[in-house]
Amino acid sequence: MTTSDTPIEPPDAGAAPGYDVAESTAAILRRLRRVEGQVRGIQGMVADGRYCIDVLQQVSAAQAALDKVALALVDDHTRHCVLGADPETREERHAELMTALARMVGRR
Amino acid sequence: MTTSDTPIEPPDAGAAPGYDVAESTAAILRRLRRVEGQVRGIQGMVADGRYCIDVLQQVSAAQAALDKVALALVDDHTRHCVLGADPETREERHAELMTALARMVGRR
Amino acid sequence: MTTSDTPIEPPDAGAAPGYDVAESTAAILRRLRRVEGQVRGIQGMVADGRYCIDVLQQVSAAQAALDKVALALVDDHTRHCVLGADPETREERHAELMTALARMVGRR
Amino acid sequence: MTTSDTPIEPPDAGAAPGYDVAESTAAILRRLRRVEGQVRGIQGMVADGRYCIDVLQQVSAAQAALDKVALALVDDHTRHCVLGADPETREERHAELMTALARMVGRR
Repeated sequence: MTTSDTPIEPPDAGAAPGYDVAESTAAILRRLRRVEGQVRGIQGMVADGRYCIDVLQQVSAAQAALDKVALALVDDHTRHCVLGADPETREERHAELMTALARMVGRR
Repeated sequence: MTTSDTPIEPPDAGAAPGYDVAESTAAILRRLRRVEGQVRGIQGMVADGRYCIDVLQQVSAAQAALDKVALALVDDHTRHCVLGADPETREERHAELMTALARMVGRR
Repeated sequence: MTTSDTPIEPPDAGAAPGYDVAESTAAILRRLRRVEGQVRGIQGMVADGRYCIDVLQQVSAAQAALDKVALALVDDHTRHCVLGADPETREERHAELMTALARMVGRR
Repeated sequence: MTTSDTPIEPPDAGAAPGYDVAESTAAILRRLRRVEGQVRGIQGMVADGRYCIDVLQQVSAAQAALDKVALALVDDHTRHCVLGADPETREERHAELMTALARMVGRR
């Protein structure tokens, strides 16, 4: 089990060729900053007493943005932590991913 | 159609007895502030190179928190804007809610 | 609490004008028969060893169809059982709907 | 691109050791037969005019069962079609999986 507070090892040789982890991290951070802005915007709408349906639409937009972050993390994990690992570690990390996907899909 | 930038009218007589809109708004704002903190925390995790599965778990937690915000808004809208409206406005607002729910459920 | 095995009372005067419950029930049944056919088709695909991604696409289609059934039921319930009820029953039925929506949205 | 109507090749050496595709297919088929029964049951409930909230609960149960089918297919695909493939095919199949997951998660 990868311990939660250790930074992950650098991109290994097993990762897909041409795949740039730093680039992918930067894209995920950009998306997250945008989500933070959306959530702050929603607070303003609620504080101003804006129409609930308009607020709901913005909540759905923030959810969709977080879905994209989640998918980017799944993509990174598969390429970088599953495909690039030795067979035993791979099995463990694949199992961790399946648990995370079950949580994402939400219903159990 | 309620225009998007008009603050909504004060709680009307048709709303459920004992239902306190200000209280509900305060609870929604508290939840949103917590979501904002969660999203900022996720940015820190990504910047620190934390294990993707741990990041994913926090994304799922933020999504679950936003789901609760969305449900609270649906509850408010139904009580306050649908049930408390005259029949014609009610029909329009109910239709707006159904559209918002379809967006929330996500698949079309 | 409406007991689970009692057929629901006939459409009441409070329901939206021009709203036809029998028509809506027929549409829901048509959708459900189509979902049943989809699920049987997916069984055939799996038994034939078809490519997992193609099977997954059909599972997503069946889920989307069930989402539409769920939304139609929410629509019916709100119009027929919430809006058309006296204030006290209305509160109870609205609360039941919110619980059902939380289950639909899935994350808690 | 794997063509949609070709049965997939037999389990390859790259699949996780101890992983039994036939066993997994049988489990997926069992789940699907149960979902088919659930959907037929829901039709009966609607035809009998059962309370919408009870019907909704059964729809949510069928959705949760389909979610499990989808996750089992994702698991199979990753083990069998992604991990067991040569690097180029692997990239293509991983990309197909990411598209399928985006569809599953639903919001875009």
